[in-house]
Amino acid sequence: MMNSIQVKEASTRLKKIEGQIRGIMKMIEDKRYCIDILSQTRAVVSGIRKVEDIIMQGHLQTCVSASMKSDNEQDKNQKIKEIMDVLSKFRKGG
Amino acid sequence: MMNSIQVKEASTRLKKIEGQIRGIMKMIEDKRYCIDILSQTRAVVSGIRKVEDIIMQGHLQTCVSASMKSDNEQDKNQKIKEIMDVLSKFRKGG
Amino acid sequence: MMNSIQVKEASTRLKKIEGQIRGIMKMIEDKRYCIDILSQTRAVVSGIRKVEDIIMQGHLQTCVSASMKSDNEQDKNQKIKEIMDVLSKFRKGG
Amino acid sequence: MMNSIQVKEASTRLKKIEGQIRGIMKMIEDKRYCIDILSQTRAVVSGIRKVEDIIMQGHLQTCVSASMKSDNEQDKNQKIKEIMDVLSKFRKGG
Repeated sequence: MMNSIQVKEASTRLKKIEGQIRGIMKMIEDKRYCIDILSQTRAVVSGIRKVEDIIMQGHLQTCVSASMKSDNEQDKNQKIKEIMDVLSKFRKGG
Repeated sequence: MMNSIQVKEASTRLKKIEGQIRGIMKMIEDKRYCIDILSQTRAVVSGIRKVEDIIMQGHLQTCVSASMKSDNEQDKNQKIKEIMDVLSKFRKGG
Repeated sequence: MMNSIQVKEASTRLKKIEGQIRGIMKMIEDKRYCIDILSQTRAVVSGIRKVEDIIMQGHLQTCVSASMKSDNEQDKNQKIKEIMDVLSKFRKGG
Repeated sequence: MMNSIQVKEASTRLKKIEGQIRGIMKMIEDKRYCIDILSQTRAVVSGIRKVEDIIMQGHLQTCVSASMKSDNEQDKNQKIKEIMDVLSKFRKGG
């Protein structure tokens, strides 16, 4: 779970990304140069990654940490599996 | 440059992504499970990539193709440099 | 730390990757088609990723798990920072 | 196709990568710290990427450039398809 500072930072970043998406739609309508549009799509991906880092940090600090502290082996293995899945998706996704 | 079909497809996808971004903001407010939020951020990245593929395809079919057909070596080298830069950014970005 | 099964699997995969690297050197000497060579370099990257997954899994199961169980907050934060760094590198690297 | 300078540079880099792979095998045997081993696997991926850039640059300068200059639309489309496939693999692979 994210703490309130993390929630606020993630929300602010997402708000900015929403504006960037609209900017890209405008660039496409205006038939701007493809390479310039791609710079903006990359900025969106970069922004999403920062949001993901905030989410992941919150997750490790709370849920993962708690389940590793407990003696519930099944829960611990589940959390490790989730982290591995996230790692795998992060490497595929961008 | 993109043709009109490509413009339309890219715009439709961006519209959908805009909605997904708002959905993620809502999930964060609702304190949803981090791993579920990360699934949605990955869907956004995946959507952006599809938009980028459309843009890149349009670019190769028109600008790159035209400049390689011409005898302007400087312009040709410039286009190759741009493709290499895009490749490099694509690999970093996600 | 990896257990003995993980060590063995990682070593076997690295041995195979070593062979693939030599194969790529041969393909380059033989002036094979660029796109075919790129398929092989991608196979190497894919192989390395599997090795990294094994290493990361071992790391989470042992070191990270142990430090989160302890009451050493500094060590716990250090481990979280390391995971975030790995995530960041994984996303940049390929 | 790569020119002779590109062939030489790619070969030198692959030779170095081969050594790095052997170094990683040694680190695993020596039960070195997981995060340190992951730094080395990332160095390999980074090295492979540089080799791929050299190959791709050669490919664009020769084969792609030639086929775009010709009036063979089918060949041109085939080359564009290949570049798009490479882009897609590069984004997945690391």
